[in-house]
Amino acid sequence: MHILITGAAGMIGRKLVTRLVNDGALNGQPIGKLTLIDVVSPQKPEHFSGQIEAAAADIAEPAAVSAAVAGRPDVIFHLAGVVSGEAELDFDKGMRVNLDGSRALFEAVRAVGGGYRPRLVFTSSIAVFGAPFPAAIADDFHLTPLTSYGTQKAATELLLADYTRRGFLDGVGIRLPSIVVRPGRPNKAASGFFSSIVREPLNGEEAVLPVADSVVHWHASPRAAVGFLIHAAGLEAAKLGPRVNLTMPGVCCTVAEQIAALRRIAGDKVAARIRRAPDPLVARIVAGWPSRFDPARALELGFRAEASFDDIIRVHVEDELGGRIAA
Amino acid sequence: MHILITGAAGMIGRKLVTRLVNDGALNGQPIGKLTLIDVVSPQKPEHFSGQIEAAAADIAEPAAVSAAVAGRPDVIFHLAGVVSGEAELDFDKGMRVNLDGSRALFEAVRAVGGGYRPRLVFTSSIAVFGAPFPAAIADDFHLTPLTSYGTQKAATELLLADYTRRGFLDGVGIRLPSIVVRPGRPNKAASGFFSSIVREPLNGEEAVLPVADSVVHWHASPRAAVGFLIHAAGLEAAKLGPRVNLTMPGVCCTVAEQIAALRRIAGDKVAARIRRAPDPLVARIVAGWPSRFDPARALELGFRAEASFDDIIRVHVEDELGGRIAA
Repeated sequence: MHILITGAAGMIGRKLVTRLVNDGALNGQPIGKLTLIDVVSPQKPEHFSGQIEAAAADIAEPAAVSAAVAGRPDVIFHLAGVVSGEAELDFDKGMRVNLDGSRALFEAVRAVGGGYRPRLVFTSSIAVFGAPFPAAIADDFHLTPLTSYGTQKAATELLLADYTRRGFLDGVGIRLPSIVVRPGRPNKAASGFFSSIVREPLNGEEAVLPVADSVVHWHASPRAAVGFLIHAAGLEAAKLGPRVNLTMPGVCCTVAEQIAALRRIAGDKVAARIRRAPDPLVARIVAGWPSRFDPARALELGFRAEASFDDIIRVHVEDELGGRIAA
Repeated sequence: MHILITGAAGMIGRKLVTRLVNDGALNGQPIGKLTLIDVVSPQKPEHFSGQIEAAAADIAEPAAVSAAVAGRPDVIFHLAGVVSGEAELDFDKGMRVNLDGSRALFEAVRAVGGGYRPRLVFTSSIAVFGAPFPAAIADDFHLTPLTSYGTQKAATELLLADYTRRGFLDGVGIRLPSIVVRPGRPNKAASGFFSSIVREPLNGEEAVLPVADSVVHWHASPRAAVGFLIHAAGLEAAKLGPRVNLTMPGVCCTVAEQIAALRRIAGDKVAARIRRAPDPLVARIVAGWPSRFDPARALELGFRAEASFDDIIRVHVEDELGGRIAA
């Protein structure tokens, strides 16, 4: 089993690599080779007995993606992309990386020929949806993104489905919820506070909450995201059918419920480190995001997220804090 | 008022030009200039007092589209495209013309700069939808095309909405029903019989019906299609909002109802010229097409199709047969 990961240096990419190395196998087959690419050269994992290639590559350069698929990887995890904020600030870069880069990858796979038809798992996003929304977004709700990032993801989903239908590759698109709790330092993303209000208090630091406690959102942990990717790699194409893009399950909860979960798990002192500082701009951005889904197809196909926000916090404590909560 | 039409040599393009020349005005402003482009040089209309440019141009060539928009047309009707069957047979050509060509046009408009933000009316298609369908397809049903043509139209819709949101242009996408009765000779399109079973009998010729009388479909006349385009050109952006792509109204009826309408209008002798010759391939293709919509938004915004298939036949008799039925 040879696996290619684009965007392998990103947060999800690194966690996926770690999981694959620990598992030693994918879809029941031992992993003999990993090819890792990203805009910066990804770190090679330790303790991997198989062959490994890691290289800096521009996904939108046809030569670079051709080289990456020349070894005919059996499974491709396509995580590479410019994030939402950057795609909004730099339209051309977002189009080039997120749309043209994905298409270049699909074309490179198609060009290999000789019956080559790898499973290609593409990470899409709930940013493909745009307000106004129904109470819960069903699997057949239309994609009307309100960001260039969401537009690029939605267009790539369409290409993925058509390349799959034509037999050029064997695609599965998974629309990730907001991934919390992101490890690392606070960032400027409008969604950053969803992680911050858990991560910083657990770290003994203050976190700023820019929106009302009543804000509802759709979450899954980094561990769940990696689980989605692994599960997507093994999905039977016949069960999936032609609608290859799926909204992933998640935990729907209010900010108040997030905070209550933190209090249950880490105590009042930790939860008290959240400071309310309403920011109308952030509040307006967040109001345009989808918050509740009915991901019936993904559930039927066996995708599983956490059952509660308590579980999401526990995953963070286990995976990032060595299981210890310092009160 | 300067108007650019891409695909001006096609059936709808020619009818649009005729209508615009007859009206002499669009959105209440006199038409001073028409720029007509297509893969073959479009015919210049007679009796037009304004300035006219007609040229062969490859829509996917950035230089060609830049030249077409250099004169800063106030309204652009973007009809150019490779048809469904051809896009399915030649994937690369369909991608190049339908997707890259549309994007090249949008980019050319964006590149003009200096506050230039023309109304751009894009003809999409109900091929953006793919089975299985609900009883009636609502405006918020997802796009899961089952053809490369539908994929390219759907991806272009996404780009149109984002280019509009960012202020690069002022787009409206209209998803046309099946256009019947198409003038001219029978063609090889799987949908051709919907027109043939009216056109040929009215012309004293036999028509072949390859599907069951119970087949349901969604129709509008060429005249209605031109009406949609004109109406879209004048739509207020504020009323339209960010969801700029609209399913057009149409007439939903069975083949049996089509034939009954033909009998009412032209008599038994004409209707008897339809010969049933079931074709399982055509039947299977047609079964994958959407057949009934609930185009609430388009109706609310004032788009109007015919009220019945009788009206669609009457439009054909008036516009193509000089109002005369030869029994």
